[in-house]
Amino acid sequence: MRIRAQASPGLRAIDVMPSLRDLGEVEAIRRLIADFGPAAGVIVGAGDDAAVLRSDRNCDLAITTDAFVEGRHYLAEWMTPAEIGARLAAANLSDLAAMAARPCWAVVTMGVRAEREFDELLELQRGLRAMLAAEGAALVGGNLSGVEGLEWFSLTLLGEVARGGAWTRAGGRPGDLLAVTGHPGRAGAALQVARKLGERARDSELRALIDAWRAPYPRIGLALALAARGGVIAAIDLSDGLAGDLAKLCEASGVGAELDARAFMADPVLEQAAHALGTALEALRYGPSDDYELLLAVDPAQRESCSRVAAELGAPLAFIGRLTDAPGVVEEVSGRDRRPISGAGFDHFSG
Amino acid sequence: MRIRAQASPGLRAIDVMPSLRDLGEVEAIRRLIADFGPAAGVIVGAGDDAAVLRSDRNCDLAITTDAFVEGRHYLAEWMTPAEIGARLAAANLSDLAAMAARPCWAVVTMGVRAEREFDELLELQRGLRAMLAAEGAALVGGNLSGVEGLEWFSLTLLGEVARGGAWTRAGGRPGDLLAVTGHPGRAGAALQVARKLGERARDSELRALIDAWRAPYPRIGLALALAARGGVIAAIDLSDGLAGDLAKLCEASGVGAELDARAFMADPVLEQAAHALGTALEALRYGPSDDYELLLAVDPAQRESCSRVAAELGAPLAFIGRLTDAPGVVEEVSGRDRRPISGAGFDHFSG
Repeated sequence: MRIRAQASPGLRAIDVMPSLRDLGEVEAIRRLIADFGPAAGVIVGAGDDAAVLRSDRNCDLAITTDAFVEGRHYLAEWMTPAEIGARLAAANLSDLAAMAARPCWAVVTMGVRAEREFDELLELQRGLRAMLAAEGAALVGGNLSGVEGLEWFSLTLLGEVARGGAWTRAGGRPGDLLAVTGHPGRAGAALQVARKLGERARDSELRALIDAWRAPYPRIGLALALAARGGVIAAIDLSDGLAGDLAKLCEASGVGAELDARAFMADPVLEQAAHALGTALEALRYGPSDDYELLLAVDPAQRESCSRVAAELGAPLAFIGRLTDAPGVVEEVSGRDRRPISGAGFDHFSG
Repeated sequence: MRIRAQASPGLRAIDVMPSLRDLGEVEAIRRLIADFGPAAGVIVGAGDDAAVLRSDRNCDLAITTDAFVEGRHYLAEWMTPAEIGARLAAANLSDLAAMAARPCWAVVTMGVRAEREFDELLELQRGLRAMLAAEGAALVGGNLSGVEGLEWFSLTLLGEVARGGAWTRAGGRPGDLLAVTGHPGRAGAALQVARKLGERARDSELRALIDAWRAPYPRIGLALALAARGGVIAAIDLSDGLAGDLAKLCEASGVGAELDARAFMADPVLEQAAHALGTALEALRYGPSDDYELLLAVDPAQRESCSRVAAELGAPLAFIGRLTDAPGVVEEVSGRDRRPISGAGFDHFSG
């Protein structure tokens, strides 16, 4: 409960949780910047007109930006502010993982209601910073705007990648193997479960699914290790869903793909979710889902090498199919059966 | 007028202006990216998980981010989409000007309602791109989110600056001269005039004021020329208002300042605005205003040199005062009179 400062004489002034309106923009920004941590390669830090950074002369820069809108990219009733911040960082970190880039510096833009408690905003920033720091990156600047209605948070992340060494979605060749990290589909399934079961989902056997959705883990370490070893030909991060993102990789590479339904790692939690939602496992696995996992096209000669790298890092990596010479055709193969897989991901403007 | 597609037989299907909902997210993003122009130093362009850039090995990077929220940073009824885009670009370009950085690459994040006509969004992006291109920078990526309620646009801009050569707000010394470009206060005055006079302001003698507000001109060329010549000790861009931004420069430099009321360039348009608003000229000149002009602390020995550079470029530059050794004290001097100047700028969470 929030107790506002009282000016009335005789009443004790208590302002346990000042809002942004209480603090004012200048003081809020001052406190947010004061909480920034140390960062390598920063010549001029936050608080000037721009931050000034010094990058490795032998590297290219990778830049990505992603935004979370309240109610669309996160549900405030299901995630703490720190989890929302960490998830926004993970979304951007995952983009850099898909380019084999090492994360370095980020700037955040926040559109926040005047009634928002400052401590919640600080908690969000701390979750964001902690996730960045875990992968070697730091917040170096930002922007705070007042909004009415839905809040939003936008992060832009810079990384370094060896000159000419960035992975892209293009370049995948027929015959290259498809590998995926983690358990695709869990995030989208968790969102459906949260919406369908409401509070009951928290204490159910689906708790693990909810946790996977709330706290994704970007695959930076694996990406950098695989890039150092070689063998990854093309890459994309799973932010729309396996089918949708695979279709994008195929389009960029001018190839098709077939997935082996039996090659996926068993995922009992996702099976339980399919049961609870009354839907097919495949619909969850292939459908809209922002898992922030990696989908890789791998040179067949490097399969064992890549598997070893993943095993050394404890990163789950499954080889789930291969690229074909039928551009745009994406199919699931199960024994003798073949069926097309639809590539539709999230559409933020439909429905 | 917007005519929606009609499915009824016998009625001709016309969709003059498709909305984002009509197009869908994927197609809208495809069209926005297709409109991106050429850009130097881009190894991987828009459409992958991240853009990959190659910067000058002898340069530091400057990064800034700024967001515009509908109704707060722009009034849609007063500006075309192209003007809104150009103004957002100018806000970020001006930050780089204040660091003496050369603009290179930008990413934009857009939070837009599903009913928004796509062509308006494209027009906004074109205005943004044209303003960036005029200063040598290009859009290399972005993000499109659906929102309900107020729309918003956030730009992150990267530039290059000679290693160790960035200007900052700090370092100003007592005795350094204060110089300002353009006519501070016009943007804030125009906003007040637009709100007070409404439509009448368009055709009044204040039209020039409205135009200055709608189409600010970032001082990149002047900043780069002055940086090459030397003599600028500290700098800040005017995005909150002259008094507020001067107070920030003074705080960062640990100095005070005195302004000579008679040293400003005459600004008949601002005088007319003061008359129309029933306020003092000084209140407009020093008060909240996002002019995207530069405030510079200049080595007195370089005054003539800086004036010559500005004159060669046709950039208005006035020497309006000097820094003092009274930290935090900012005064206006007019003959024998001295009076303190309040440093309050915009506060997006008040009111």
